[in-house]
Amino acid sequence: MTIEPIAQRIRAQLAELRAFTATPGSGVTRFPFTPEARAASEYIEARMEEIGLAVRMDNSGSVIGRLEGQVPDTVMIGSHLDSVRFGGAYDGIAGVVCGIEAVRQLIEGGGQPYYSIEVIATNDEEGSRFKSGLFTGKVLDAQLTVDDIRRYKDEDGVSVYDAMKAYGLDPDAIAANKRTDIKAFLEVHIEQGPILEAEQKDIGIVDIIVGIKRALVTVHGRADHVGTMPMNMRMDAVEAASKVIAGIGDRARQFPQAVATVGSLNVEPNIVNIVPSQVSYTVDFRGATRDVIEAQYQGMLDDLRAVTGRFHMTFDVEETLWVDPVELSGDFRRYIEESCTKHGYSNMHILSGAGHDAQVFGARMPAAMIFVPSIGGRSHCPEENTDERTLAQASVAACDTLRQICEEKKL
Amino acid sequence: MTIEPIAQRIRAQLAELRAFTATPGSGVTRFPFTPEARAASEYIEARMEEIGLAVRMDNSGSVIGRLEGQVPDTVMIGSHLDSVRFGGAYDGIAGVVCGIEAVRQLIEGGGQPYYSIEVIATNDEEGSRFKSGLFTGKVLDAQLTVDDIRRYKDEDGVSVYDAMKAYGLDPDAIAANKRTDIKAFLEVHIEQGPILEAEQKDIGIVDIIVGIKRALVTVHGRADHVGTMPMNMRMDAVEAASKVIAGIGDRARQFPQAVATVGSLNVEPNIVNIVPSQVSYTVDFRGATRDVIEAQYQGMLDDLRAVTGRFHMTFDVEETLWVDPVELSGDFRRYIEESCTKHGYSNMHILSGAGHDAQVFGARMPAAMIFVPSIGGRSHCPEENTDERTLAQASVAACDTLRQICEEKKL
Repeated sequence: MTIEPIAQRIRAQLAELRAFTATPGSGVTRFPFTPEARAASEYIEARMEEIGLAVRMDNSGSVIGRLEGQVPDTVMIGSHLDSVRFGGAYDGIAGVVCGIEAVRQLIEGGGQPYYSIEVIATNDEEGSRFKSGLFTGKVLDAQLTVDDIRRYKDEDGVSVYDAMKAYGLDPDAIAANKRTDIKAFLEVHIEQGPILEAEQKDIGIVDIIVGIKRALVTVHGRADHVGTMPMNMRMDAVEAASKVIAGIGDRARQFPQAVATVGSLNVEPNIVNIVPSQVSYTVDFRGATRDVIEAQYQGMLDDLRAVTGRFHMTFDVEETLWVDPVELSGDFRRYIEESCTKHGYSNMHILSGAGHDAQVFGARMPAAMIFVPSIGGRSHCPEENTDERTLAQASVAACDTLRQICEEKKL
Repeated sequence: MTIEPIAQRIRAQLAELRAFTATPGSGVTRFPFTPEARAASEYIEARMEEIGLAVRMDNSGSVIGRLEGQVPDTVMIGSHLDSVRFGGAYDGIAGVVCGIEAVRQLIEGGGQPYYSIEVIATNDEEGSRFKSGLFTGKVLDAQLTVDDIRRYKDEDGVSVYDAMKAYGLDPDAIAANKRTDIKAFLEVHIEQGPILEAEQKDIGIVDIIVGIKRALVTVHGRADHVGTMPMNMRMDAVEAASKVIAGIGDRARQFPQAVATVGSLNVEPNIVNIVPSQVSYTVDFRGATRDVIEAQYQGMLDDLRAVTGRFHMTFDVEETLWVDPVELSGDFRRYIEESCTKHGYSNMHILSGAGHDAQVFGARMPAAMIFVPSIGGRSHCPEENTDERTLAQASVAACDTLRQICEEKKL
């Protein structure tokens, strides 16, 4: 397979797609149910039609191009159409273009595939507009109710419900779009991290999409005069919180591939000459297993108990998010690895530290993700960049994987 | 000396003075150059006149009542008239009332004192309105220029210069009010901390007003995706800062009576799912000697170097305040102690962790401070409270100290 013509096609399409942004000159901002999303959808529909797919928009606002197989059971391949605010030109959309390219190669190879194949550009994966996300995946699993989509609102107070209606969709049917015919899901995506580049690999075969636990921790102290309250009588919320937070990173380092981050922290009253009465901080733990996540969380709770006990202070913890780790299909990982070996693509196994459409699908069906290197590890910023030759390689591996899935007939 | 009649007088005067507030129902807010300050000044002037003092307002806006001695050299006794926002009814003003009471007792004792005595209610000690403070002390030492008082402005953009003018003072003469005749300074003040109450002492004899060093520390990291950036490749500003801050309190505990506080801390970008790129925090170190303060500061710098070095990060430090420790007069401390012994007042030696008028005067002349217990250690809040009997005892000890100073004739 000669890579350069494929890379050129991908490069050309991504160059056109990056123009569909609400923030020209400041990266790609393509929020769901916007004119930018509509324009990008129409561009993607045209590319799907060019290779002979039957194109439609489903009730989640995703664009789907279908190739009918020998059976109606369907293998889906794709990624998301939307972006974060001031994002890059690769996150999500590169996987859509690679999906089209993989199916183009499959069709060029001739013969009707055993399974029906759909390329999908999913909608509102990022959740940037409504603080929700993974929208299409949830709609196709009937996880959302009319109440849910009325509740999620953007900064202007527009609900998902209203935005769907204005976009020409049927929000009242939101719970009636479950797809039971989808039997497998493949996704090509940029890594969004520095590992593949550091290891000089072109392809990352994702074993697990990590689980996430988030909590909001509040440490309660007492405001006092910084000069007149002796050290052994004060209840300094910043002192206590810092002693706990100082251990969070090193505890994560004890577990392979685990991460933990205190991303946001707020102090009350936050004045130079008053002992802080309260600190609230968010913590985000990730890991390949529930155990790794829980061990980090319990370790932090132990530290919170010990430190606040020392100072006769109190704390409370609100668990704000739990996402289970998702192990991707061992068979599909093997197909991808075999394709890389056959074509001589350098590759490695890797975890996904970020959430993806594949985690929603992967929780109920065999799924696979193929990562390609992010230059400098940068993502969610205008500087986000990826060599299109690695995307071309990923599309070839994805096509081989589709072929193998159809050959095995095991879904 | 029977205490209760003195305590009743002090109690009655403080009860009337607490009404001169801009925030009735929410504690005392008596900012400089306001109608509240004017009303309190007139009340104080009347009390001074009642005991036979010659009363005037000086060009700093302070109220002064003078008792002519055998020589013009003057011993000043008093504290400040102004308060913080939503403050208490004792901080500052209790020392003014005690000063009047001490001189009343001195006059009642009969005979012209050797030194002239002035009771002073100083102006803008707290600095709450213009973010400056210790105003009268600085004016009487000619430390301020017209440029300075044009630069200090309140929230509404009114400068000290303009406020002085509107109050009927002469701001252009600000540098021409140096008093070389003041030879000693005495101040009665509430402790504003919990030590006297915890030790069950009625009188605190202040040995040293602590020095202060403040710095603004900024730790520079790098923003990254919390899921995709491995722990060993990230530059997490919250992780680094917390490891440094965690040690600041325990280092202070190694030095007797030292304190250290990180009162304010701000994170960038302060988002749950982004590794923090920057933390800025203020730190306030206090101690009885320069060495104790510097040892704490240098210890923090060592930790900053070690921690940022580990993560290949950088930091910078801006030193924002330096106030030298001030040792109060050994003779005056002895006079106070002798008075307490004579009258049977329980007492102890203590540091002042807060700044006071006595530190400005004490840097250039013998000075003394007498502390009385703050109930619950509370101050700078409406709940601030002190038993007026301890204030009465302090006025007696202050009167004895004035007598002793005049007897010794050593100034």
